[in-house]
Amino acid sequence: MNFIEKLERAQKKNSSLLCVGLDPSLDRLPESCRVQSQPFLVFNRALIDATSDLVCAYKPQIAHYAACGAEAELLATISYIHDNYADIPVILDAKRGDIGSTAEKYALEAFERYQADAVTVNPYLGGDSLEPFLKYEEKGVVILCRTSNPGSGELQGLEVDGEPVYLKLAGLAAASWNKNRNILLVVGATWPAELARVREVVGEMPLLVPGVGVQGGNLAAVLRAGLDSRGAGLVINSSRGIIYAGQGEGYVEAARQAALELRDAINSHRQI
Amino acid sequence: MNFIEKLERAQKKNSSLLCVGLDPSLDRLPESCRVQSQPFLVFNRALIDATSDLVCAYKPQIAHYAACGAEAELLATISYIHDNYADIPVILDAKRGDIGSTAEKYALEAFERYQADAVTVNPYLGGDSLEPFLKYEEKGVVILCRTSNPGSGELQGLEVDGEPVYLKLAGLAAASWNKNRNILLVVGATWPAELARVREVVGEMPLLVPGVGVQGGNLAAVLRAGLDSRGAGLVINSSRGIIYAGQGEGYVEAARQAALELRDAINSHRQI
Repeated sequence: MNFIEKLERAQKKNSSLLCVGLDPSLDRLPESCRVQSQPFLVFNRALIDATSDLVCAYKPQIAHYAACGAEAELLATISYIHDNYADIPVILDAKRGDIGSTAEKYALEAFERYQADAVTVNPYLGGDSLEPFLKYEEKGVVILCRTSNPGSGELQGLEVDGEPVYLKLAGLAAASWNKNRNILLVVGATWPAELARVREVVGEMPLLVPGVGVQGGNLAAVLRAGLDSRGAGLVINSSRGIIYAGQGEGYVEAARQAALELRDAINSHRQI
Repeated sequence: MNFIEKLERAQKKNSSLLCVGLDPSLDRLPESCRVQSQPFLVFNRALIDATSDLVCAYKPQIAHYAACGAEAELLATISYIHDNYADIPVILDAKRGDIGSTAEKYALEAFERYQADAVTVNPYLGGDSLEPFLKYEEKGVVILCRTSNPGSGELQGLEVDGEPVYLKLAGLAAASWNKNRNILLVVGATWPAELARVREVVGEMPLLVPGVGVQGGNLAAVLRAGLDSRGAGLVINSSRGIIYAGQGEGYVEAARQAALELRDAINSHRQI
């Protein structure tokens, strides 16, 4: 079963387009986690146990672990999901990108070492730099298209023959790079008009949409712009809005409540 | 002393524009290294000891370590350089890039955890995504501009108002993003004509040039196109061409010889 099938099964099973980002920072963790020898793992396991029936994917962001040498906790978190909630796919958010011989190593990092089901990648180096990821047919390759940050237009929005760079990229991804049908694109929730243009270009390719929580993306606008013709095709990520929904020791219950509300709010805008 | 000063001092001290890439792969290491508990560190230390008087920088590429969980060896390699050859700067080749709050974590990874003097970054997300790196005034931020791979033109070469994306980027880097005078750009040795255009736009900004070895870039053309008005401003990287110059146990002497020849070949094309 390839990544997109696994993702769609999880979406149906949990009636959910919600992805929870597992991006722990030591200074925001409750005391009960901070005193542990593996604080991120303890924090994540509790969040996963509390939300596994509400999500279609988990997305750990690797920099949060790499900044403090917590690779072992990232690996253990991903293993924990595979071992206990095998039908929920894991997207490793790493935004990797390099020339072919080095991209091979990054693909090993994501798919062999961490056993991620999918990885986010940066397309600036061109299609040949993505091949080492794309050749893993069973894995998902989630390519940055139009990112959620305020300055994303600086390069992505440059006009090429009357069409912005991000839309050229969407066209390349859909028409040239997707031989193994394992590509997804990232389009930020902060750009609903751009999301609609991407959807028009890519048909039913799934889109990963960050930015609905702390970053302020509008949910109704995102769903109107981004759903595919089947009323699906979106993976809507929230990280800080879920994992830090509560203060202190109540974080688990607060995270479940926030995940439930966001899943249901998403569903209220679509037919299921 | 900021990164560019440190780099220029090392260039003068060793009469060298050569940067050696420390990109070990277990399957290419000699037996005497492979049997060690820290094979990459043993391999790297010998290479560093053999070349420290011939280079202006070292550039470990992080994926080679991350693919197999060898973060400790990367850290020990960088510490070894700082402790024994303090005037040679270390460029961590990581090509990171993410939205601001996550870019902060990547900057911590490169500058605090690994104590790199500079890091390579990917500009696809725009200038705001680079600020968390750029604000480290003493550190170098090496932005991908026109990469050495065959497919780099697919996005980087798209024409915007009669000017390719990579040149727009060079203009933004020089005119808008370089408030702390700590930016360098990456332009592949495989694109000398493009290198000349970038040089014209960025003045004396240093350029990191990979691709002269295995990738086949022409040295004379690179120097003609890329030297600044002072006959400097380039950091010419070779990884595989140096570290795998010899077979088996003779790798150290072969690497020194290859580094010496490349340094001198570079110098033969400029006034020093």
